[in-house]
Amino acid sequence: MHGEVLLANDAFYVAFEAGAIAAMVDLWDHSDEVICTHPGMPTVRGWDEVRLSWEQILRHGGDMQFIVTDERVVVYGDVGWVTCTENIIGSEGPRGTVSALNLFARSRDGAWLMVGHHGGGVASLR
Amino acid sequence: MHGEVLLANDAFYVAFEAGAIAAMVDLWDHSDEVICTHPGMPTVRGWDEVRLSWEQILRHGGDMQFIVTDERVVVYGDVGWVTCTENIIGSEGPRGTVSALNLFARSRDGAWLMVGHHGGGVASLR
Repeated sequence: MHGEVLLANDAFYVAFEAGAIAAMVDLWDHSDEVICTHPGMPTVRGWDEVRLSWEQILRHGGDMQFIVTDERVVVYGDVGWVTCTENIIGSEGPRGTVSALNLFARSRDGAWLMVGHHGGGVASLR
Repeated sequence: MHGEVLLANDAFYVAFEAGAIAAMVDLWDHSDEVICTHPGMPTVRGWDEVRLSWEQILRHGGDMQFIVTDERVVVYGDVGWVTCTENIIGSEGPRGTVSALNLFARSRDGAWLMVGHHGGGVASLR
């Protein structure tokens, strides 16, 4: 289970880094219960709002490279979460560091879908 | 279940606001898997580190009043989480706004224990 959750977490950062909206859409659960908090922002809730937030970030975020470190997985039954550090490098150099908590739930067909993301800037991130 | 998780979340803010270390200790699960991210800080993991972080915050945080708004609960089996907004007022006035995600898991005896907290500053919080 831990490995499957870690793979789902990796897929999230691959989609984020690539700015791939379709991939990002596919890896989220499309329910009213999903939640997402981007650094410095209020929490958005429900798939419609969460999807919109990703469209805005991925379309306007520019080139970003994610070096994800210190991943730790916790699994309780059909729910799992990963805490990790996002070391973000932009096209013009370092952008900062984010402490992330990514939540996943196993769907009926066995896929681990993202149900929550909470990113908070560390130290110098603005 | 939603009501029980909400009560656990309320107990967390009562302990936080009161600076009550013993109450804060009692409401957390004391396992290696707990995680905690305070605003602007790296994630700390495992009960020993998490407990230390709370001791530091509650002893040195000064007077804080929490006005918690916009609580939403999600429950998947024996795991639940609450997203909410912490409107924090200090003894010298507003301190800022934090988007929080609080994770709880039901223990064998039926109690909902805290297993994760992730707070991220919104907008003007430094």
